[in-house]
Amino acid sequence: MATIKDIADKVGVTVTSVSRVLNNRGYISETLKKRVQEAMEELNYQPNEVARSLIRKKSNIIGLIIPDVSHPFFGEVTKYIEYYADKNGYKLLLCNSKLNKLKEKEYINMLKGSQVDGIIMGSHTMDTKDYTSIKLPMVTLDRQITDTIPYISSDNYKGGELATNLLIKKGCKKIAHISGNLHLNLLAKLRHDAFKNVITNKGIEHIVLQTELNGFNYDEYEQLVSSMFQEHPDIDGVFASSDIIAAQVLKECYRIGKSVPQDMKIVGYDGIQLGQLITPGITTIKQPTKEIGKMAVRLIIEQIEGQDVLKENILPVKLIERQST
Amino acid sequence: MATIKDIADKVGVTVTSVSRVLNNRGYISETLKKRVQEAMEELNYQPNEVARSLIRKKSNIIGLIIPDVSHPFFGEVTKYIEYYADKNGYKLLLCNSKLNKLKEKEYINMLKGSQVDGIIMGSHTMDTKDYTSIKLPMVTLDRQITDTIPYISSDNYKGGELATNLLIKKGCKKIAHISGNLHLNLLAKLRHDAFKNVITNKGIEHIVLQTELNGFNYDEYEQLVSSMFQEHPDIDGVFASSDIIAAQVLKECYRIGKSVPQDMKIVGYDGIQLGQLITPGITTIKQPTKEIGKMAVRLIIEQIEGQDVLKENILPVKLIERQST
Repeated sequence: MATIKDIADKVGVTVTSVSRVLNNRGYISETLKKRVQEAMEELNYQPNEVARSLIRKKSNIIGLIIPDVSHPFFGEVTKYIEYYADKNGYKLLLCNSKLNKLKEKEYINMLKGSQVDGIIMGSHTMDTKDYTSIKLPMVTLDRQITDTIPYISSDNYKGGELATNLLIKKGCKKIAHISGNLHLNLLAKLRHDAFKNVITNKGIEHIVLQTELNGFNYDEYEQLVSSMFQEHPDIDGVFASSDIIAAQVLKECYRIGKSVPQDMKIVGYDGIQLGQLITPGITTIKQPTKEIGKMAVRLIIEQIEGQDVLKENILPVKLIERQST
Repeated sequence: MATIKDIADKVGVTVTSVSRVLNNRGYISETLKKRVQEAMEELNYQPNEVARSLIRKKSNIIGLIIPDVSHPFFGEVTKYIEYYADKNGYKLLLCNSKLNKLKEKEYINMLKGSQVDGIIMGSHTMDTKDYTSIKLPMVTLDRQITDTIPYISSDNYKGGELATNLLIKKGCKKIAHISGNLHLNLLAKLRHDAFKNVITNKGIEHIVLQTELNGFNYDEYEQLVSSMFQEHPDIDGVFASSDIIAAQVLKECYRIGKSVPQDMKIVGYDGIQLGQLITPGITTIKQPTKEIGKMAVRLIIEQIEGQDVLKENILPVKLIERQST
């Protein structure tokens, strides 16, 4: 394999000059740049990115910590983050925390040790001080940590309003909201707040359930939904905080013989691509996964480049009406 | 931030001795090891993994190239690969090729430049020579490249047999197989071969359709399935090569008023977790995603450590019968 020395010999300059070209440091004439590039191509030179990253103090790696890449929402966001990272010359180290606090901290240490240029945090079980001690460009998804760490979220409050108002407009008399865990201090809690505000104002009977802390457990959803219908057989509308949970509600309706949307109206959340495959189609609040991924990468890169970035970044959601309402 | 020099000063030894402990090189007494570790903890020393990887010529990074992490099958496999990589002290660089040959080659070059210790290839549009020139520990998923590159696959032929025999046993008279693209030279083609062999032997009417090369396009599936039913209204059984496509078939049955499983029986493939949320439940051939992920990591690590590994690794599949048959 060709080395920098081989290129220097071929061009007839010093190793230092070649290194200057490779790392874009100091004064480099256009002629020299061109001759080095030609020699690199001729000799099929593969720069050692690891050595270069030591010199430049830049690894061009972004770390991503999410709960679980096999959850469709995070899978879609990860796809777009990787796409835009690659487009901007960055690589992506993927970490699945399974919403485990210890695991999150271990990953943070690993990413710092690996000299990543920035971290996108989409899993949030740690305390505020664990974040503020990271001291790397960072963006959080769906959680506001401090005034100084930029975050991206879709408009959860608006999403909660849209979902609740739709169920009321369609005539539901007793509505359940199945929320993610409210102790995690996520911005998704605003969906719950909007539900409570709207439904209390309109004086409509309602209940709120929340999922456990232990990640995305389909069996847990099944039990939660099943006992909800047993305890509250008069529920005629459900606003679920994910399409996965909404699909579980639909499945339970089939099982116990409730027809959708006649006896039961269902609204999900996220707008995952798989939602369009289920019949009847589940009405949902679509989060802009592509824009979230694109913006996360942009905010990391702008911080790496020393630019000031907006701290609060809230993207619009969209109501998609399908046959479940 | 503490440096190796600070640790050396604290312990009262040379930088070289500390470096020997950090890199586990040469003779190190247990006492010295302990004292260095204590000093590291007291000074909150973060080893620079990048510098260490240059010294050890080992990055502890595995590269993973797949078509699309938001496809549920690849999302699940990726989750397990990351889990087992992390468990063994390896990090995962994620690359989504979208089944684009140029992109695959670019990723390979990027991964080599980043000094990854090995590559798990789950996307296969390149030619054989593109693989043999990589010269890094490698494992391929679902494609056999040469006799020297180990591959992992589930038992596609068996899966095809199970699916086809079940549809025949359930009384189907005209069966369609919707295959992935057969030009990609994937081992998944064996599902098709098994279908053809079984159905020809039994003398049952059948057709075969295949999807385009351009990745996983839900709109394309919709058109494919819709025109299949228009051209062949007498089809009463479908063996789809993914659960996603099977869900699309089910959706089309709802749309045109065919009842499942009475008028139409459907078998999918993969056994993705989301399959259990759809009603009626889709019968499927389950691939062991967890075992695939675990084995991929093990085969990479064994190669990194210089061990000989089995080249052909075929894992068992399982028929899961649900309401669609």
